[in-house]
Amino acid sequence: MRQKEREIKDRKAIDNIIKRCLVCRLAMCADGQPYVIPLNFGYDGKNLYFHAALEGRKIDIIRRNSSVGFEFDILHEIIKTESACKWNTKYESVVGSGKAEIIKDVEGKKSALEYIMRQYGSEAKDFPEEVLKKTLILRVRILEISGKAIK
Amino acid sequence: MRQKEREIKDRKAIDNIIKRCLVCRLAMCADGQPYVIPLNFGYDGKNLYFHAALEGRKIDIIRRNSSVGFEFDILHEIIKTESACKWNTKYESVVGSGKAEIIKDVEGKKSALEYIMRQYGSEAKDFPEEVLKKTLILRVRILEISGKAIK
Repeated sequence: MRQKEREIKDRKAIDNIIKRCLVCRLAMCADGQPYVIPLNFGYDGKNLYFHAALEGRKIDIIRRNSSVGFEFDILHEIIKTESACKWNTKYESVVGSGKAEIIKDVEGKKSALEYIMRQYGSEAKDFPEEVLKKTLILRVRILEISGKAIK
Repeated sequence: MRQKEREIKDRKAIDNIIKRCLVCRLAMCADGQPYVIPLNFGYDGKNLYFHAALEGRKIDIIRRNSSVGFEFDILHEIIKTESACKWNTKYESVVGSGKAEIIKDVEGKKSALEYIMRQYGSEAKDFPEEVLKKTLILRVRILEISGKAIK
C-alpha cells in the first residue's frame, strides 16, 4: 500500500494547503510522552495561533517544553483496487515544528484572535476585554515546515 | 470562543468515533522535539496498527522512544454567530497515548494488515510475501484513551 509521495517545498503551495484547513493538530511532549490534540487555529504566514483555557494539560506541557510539532491534512479519496497492495490515498498534508509562547500583551492577543477568525472566514475585530482576559493565546513560531501530496 | 465540551469515557462510544475515521495522527518525540504525522490505520479494540517504510524519520524516532500519542477527529460544523466569542465548533475527537512496537512475526503482520484493510471496508486477506517483507508494521498498545464531543 506504499505509494510515491510528492514532497512540497514551495511555501506558497504549503500555505495554500493550510488555507483550506479548519483543524490543526498540535503535538507537545513532556517527560518523553507525546500528546496531540485537534485545535482551531490562525496563521499569519510565519506563526500559528491557538486559543486555550488559562489552565489545562496543554498549557502545563508547553510551560515545561515549548517545542511543538503540528500537522494539517486534507484527505481527498481512498482509491480501492482489487489488490489491497495497490490501494492509494489521495491527500495533501503539512507537517512541521516550532516554538510555542504565551502571548502576554493585549494587542498581540487581539491580532492573534483576528488571524484565528480570518481562518474561518470572519473579519471580526472586536473582542471584549473580559474575553481577552479569560483567553490564553499561544503563538507558535514555525521553524520547520514541509508538505506532501498525492493527487 | 470557549465552549463546554462533553467528555466521553465509555469505550464503546470512543470506538464508535474511531470506526468512522479514516486518518489517525500519530505523535512521536525524540530529544524533546514532538513530531506528528497523518496515517492510515487499523484498530482491534486494544491496539492501533500502522504500516511504514522500513526506514524513515518515524521509525528512527520510535526506535529511540516508543511512547506515542495519537488523535482522531471528526469536524461536523462550525457555527458562526454575530458575536465571534460565541462561535461553536461541533466535533467529535479521541485522544490517547500508547507504546509502539515493530511487529516481527509474519502472522502478526498479516493480522495487522487485515485490521488496516478492515478500517477501510475491505476484507482483503492475501498479502504477498514480498509485500510483507518490504512493509514495516507498527502495533501501538493503547494505554490511555478518552473522547470529547460537542454536538
